[in-house]
Amino acid sequence: MYRTHSCGALNASDINKEVTLSGWVQKSRDKGFMIWIDLRDRYGLTQLIFDEERSAADLMERAKKLGREFVIQITGTVIERQSKNPNMKTGEIEVLVSKLTLLNESKTPPFTIEDTTDGGEDLRMKYRYLDIRRNPVKENLLFRHKVSMEVRKYLSDDGFVDVETPYLIKSTPEGARDFLVPSRMNQGQFYALPQSPQTFKQLLMIGGLDKYFQIVKCFRDEDLRADRQPEFTQIDCEMAFVEQEDILNTFEGLTRHLLKEIKGVDVAEFPRMQYDDAMKLYGNDKPDIRFGMQFGELNSVAQHKEFGVFNTAELVVGIAIPGGASYTRKEIDKLVDWVRRPQVGALGMVYVKCNEDGSYKSSVDKFYDQNDLEKWAEVTGAKPGDLICVLSGDINKVRAQLSALRMEMAERLGLRNPDEFAPLWVVDFPLLELDEETGHYHAMHHPFTSPKPGQLALLDSKPGEVKANAYDLVLNGNEIGGGSIRIHDKEIQAIMLKKLGFSDEEAKAQFGFLMDAFEYGAPPHGGIAFGLDRLVSILGGQETIRDFIAFPKNNSGRDVMIDSPATIDDEQLKELNIKLDIQE
Amino acid sequence: MYRTHSCGALNASDINKEVTLSGWVQKSRDKGFMIWIDLRDRYGLTQLIFDEERSAADLMERAKKLGREFVIQITGTVIERQSKNPNMKTGEIEVLVSKLTLLNESKTPPFTIEDTTDGGEDLRMKYRYLDIRRNPVKENLLFRHKVSMEVRKYLSDDGFVDVETPYLIKSTPEGARDFLVPSRMNQGQFYALPQSPQTFKQLLMIGGLDKYFQIVKCFRDEDLRADRQPEFTQIDCEMAFVEQEDILNTFEGLTRHLLKEIKGVDVAEFPRMQYDDAMKLYGNDKPDIRFGMQFGELNSVAQHKEFGVFNTAELVVGIAIPGGASYTRKEIDKLVDWVRRPQVGALGMVYVKCNEDGSYKSSVDKFYDQNDLEKWAEVTGAKPGDLICVLSGDINKVRAQLSALRMEMAERLGLRNPDEFAPLWVVDFPLLELDEETGHYHAMHHPFTSPKPGQLALLDSKPGEVKANAYDLVLNGNEIGGGSIRIHDKEIQAIMLKKLGFSDEEAKAQFGFLMDAFEYGAPPHGGIAFGLDRLVSILGGQETIRDFIAFPKNNSGRDVMIDSPATIDDEQLKELNIKLDIQE
Repeated sequence: MYRTHSCGALNASDINKEVTLSGWVQKSRDKGFMIWIDLRDRYGLTQLIFDEERSAADLMERAKKLGREFVIQITGTVIERQSKNPNMKTGEIEVLVSKLTLLNESKTPPFTIEDTTDGGEDLRMKYRYLDIRRNPVKENLLFRHKVSMEVRKYLSDDGFVDVETPYLIKSTPEGARDFLVPSRMNQGQFYALPQSPQTFKQLLMIGGLDKYFQIVKCFRDEDLRADRQPEFTQIDCEMAFVEQEDILNTFEGLTRHLLKEIKGVDVAEFPRMQYDDAMKLYGNDKPDIRFGMQFGELNSVAQHKEFGVFNTAELVVGIAIPGGASYTRKEIDKLVDWVRRPQVGALGMVYVKCNEDGSYKSSVDKFYDQNDLEKWAEVTGAKPGDLICVLSGDINKVRAQLSALRMEMAERLGLRNPDEFAPLWVVDFPLLELDEETGHYHAMHHPFTSPKPGQLALLDSKPGEVKANAYDLVLNGNEIGGGSIRIHDKEIQAIMLKKLGFSDEEAKAQFGFLMDAFEYGAPPHGGIAFGLDRLVSILGGQETIRDFIAFPKNNSGRDVMIDSPATIDDEQLKELNIKLDIQE
Repeated sequence: MYRTHSCGALNASDINKEVTLSGWVQKSRDKGFMIWIDLRDRYGLTQLIFDEERSAADLMERAKKLGREFVIQITGTVIERQSKNPNMKTGEIEVLVSKLTLLNESKTPPFTIEDTTDGGEDLRMKYRYLDIRRNPVKENLLFRHKVSMEVRKYLSDDGFVDVETPYLIKSTPEGARDFLVPSRMNQGQFYALPQSPQTFKQLLMIGGLDKYFQIVKCFRDEDLRADRQPEFTQIDCEMAFVEQEDILNTFEGLTRHLLKEIKGVDVAEFPRMQYDDAMKLYGNDKPDIRFGMQFGELNSVAQHKEFGVFNTAELVVGIAIPGGASYTRKEIDKLVDWVRRPQVGALGMVYVKCNEDGSYKSSVDKFYDQNDLEKWAEVTGAKPGDLICVLSGDINKVRAQLSALRMEMAERLGLRNPDEFAPLWVVDFPLLELDEETGHYHAMHHPFTSPKPGQLALLDSKPGEVKANAYDLVLNGNEIGGGSIRIHDKEIQAIMLKKLGFSDEEAKAQFGFLMDAFEYGAPPHGGIAFGLDRLVSILGGQETIRDFIAFPKNNSGRDVMIDSPATIDDEQLKELNIKLDIQE
């Protein structure tokens, strides 16, 4: 028995008890005649005391030698503290040690095990097991556990059944890149790791399981952008005999439950926004609606004047920045520089100061009079004291640029409050999106997404305008979940795959099993998948998913702690019937 | 809205309600003037009725055309059944249909969707989505979900934290073979899929998380024996500051909870048995103790007589088969044939009939008199009416052979009652086992298992005798869990790895991160892992794990439904910097 109590358990009611504790030496204060040690475990800190007058001499000697992160076991008596610490769970007491056992020594850790550490990202990742001892990381992992458990309980209570789908599946080369696994027993053949259990959950619906969920690892071999991981976790869900409305209601229920249980936040009915409106009003399919600054499209009021830049633009669009009229010329110039950074990519920015006296001062006063500018203010909803920022150009590019500016300004103005939660359903996504490079249409969601009823006919004439039964759940400007009602008709699925450029052979080789399954009584079905890493980090009020993953990989897909991936033995290659073929 | 109720919901209290149901046509009885259809979903069956007198003519026509497994939606009125079916949840009512919508057609399924199907294993696996519609398979998957949820709840309530460990890790070529994953971004390097999260859970303990669990997929690229899967699921657990006793108590608690909650069975304190005793008494480290037939070692009473076969044997050992004295000569000959099958491998079998009158009749009466045989009966615990079966030879082989016979006889005698649960801790496993081929010692559990205190000194002199802090949980003759107290001292870990044949370089390359971690205050820790597939199948009263896996692989590691593994594009190979290298 290593302990009678944890280091977070003792309080005044335990005074005079003999207790045994185990843990790590957080810190030690040696006054010569008296030594205090903070003993730490997952559950808290307890102050230990060694005292010349009350402790044996050899015990004092041994206590003096305890360094940071040494692992010890002590037995002693709980006594009342002279100076209580009300900020500490165990702050009323300390333990006068009578017996000390050294369980393990520790080298001096490469960074301090404190809430704010002196360790940089690289060092923390290499010694992640020490990083996890720090409260913020530990609390994040406990928080993730809590969220996962709540999700499971809620869905299980609602009749969803957790079914494990296979990890060793088959490669489907379109879409993102698969991680592949050579099969030793089937020479020259490979498994793939799932990018999602998509087809399997559809088969479970065809199999009559009705409501499925799984918290499951998924894999994508993509070039990693910041804060992407090659392996990530989904809350994967599917339901049979449902329409879009049923799915939205069910998962609005789940999300509301999480916000209530985990954050203590009550959220009203989630607003819904059409994809087209989201793009129009926020330039973005995952708008952060905790704040305004909606886009105002200015083509009708800003074009057909003398200002050539606007006249030739596909879209002229602006936002009103609250209080921005007071910005100095220098501040505004900096803003112009900001939108011209390559990461944003605007060519320039037009601005209008909306003065408190109702007058306007703009960077294009040469072309627009006060009446013109008043219309701009109306369209963008600018009030006296605001600054209207206007960008122009190609519709897709300019929306992305202005969206970036909107988010940046919200950040600067403190409008992105991590304790405020603004969920939003974005619905009616396009079924297809044009790949500008190849000129081909891709599935925006995936090839199993159903078009809106009656829109199949548009597929040939205006493929870009076909809307899908597809939806995203957005929280504070992040997509936390997305899904669709699936195709359950073999004919329609065949049309879709053809439209997406699959030959009949390819379709059969990759999805033949699903097409076959559609012939044996496939029910209408649909589902959703949440990104758990992202969901947890947003609920945790943070932006970096890495801080909520126990052992994350870096941007090269490496685990720097275990030094993986690594070279393997020739013998292993031979068994797998492969050779290296390094491209220079 | 596809339905107001499920197909398992309606009863007499719903009579006169208008309801909408969706589901599959289980069967149809057409009497011409009246048609009954059993409509099925996950939740049950509801009888639908179409009636010439009360239903529109075109509705009758369309109802007649519905085939098995067609997916339909109906609206109708709940009415009282003429002939009630008390064996059916919805047996009091039927639904008089007023509206019928065909949601999807179905080809005739390749096997019947009934509890007892006409589909063979291969066909069922190819059309697993249809197999899952069958009650027994569906119930198994629901049962698995229930067990998983109970495990999670119990452990979470006990302070265990569910932490996801990575799937893309590093290969450690000793032990079982790893599945490997080429890294595209790190040329010539590979990830490995985890055989278990062993080192990661130890790092979590070093990281101070104190109590960890995870229900997690693990991977082993082994030649598949019957009922092994290349991917399988573990309930993986680890605790810090624990001794063996703490782990046994904690997981005895979990197992008892599952037996109570899931099966309604109360089990007393689990017995414990030393590994050596299990081998001696049952010839097996996972004895089924639902029944007796313990081994009796007969060397002292059967050797040094005239019977040369026994005199030269390392071990002479027998069991008493209850009631076996009544077997005919033919039956006994069949038993001898059975033990001589290559799968068992005995050279022969000596038997003694213990007659009801207290006399003995044996196959070796030439060498042994009644007094001798009476001693045999004493040692094997044989009573009048029993048959003593005796095998002899090499100690390890003969124990395995007699164990096989013991299990076979228990099966034949109906002593393996699936509704009876006899858990057992087997403790004090050897630390090492000799590989007869190479003459080297391997870790019996894994290289991180700690030897019993004070036994380290034996490691050089008598490696085979060193006992480990290792334990298995056995249920009804199956190992359902196993674990150990781990080494947490760098020096001891280094000694162990050396003993297991790792060079310093190999140890550092493969386990350097763990050895490093041991230098920064590693606490004493230990854990256990349960095989979930096996646990669920035994709790479910069945022996085949495949029946409790949604999408299992066959004995060649293939998923015959999706036809995986499969060949991949040259482009994919090139991106991964590998080539095929098929061995002829």
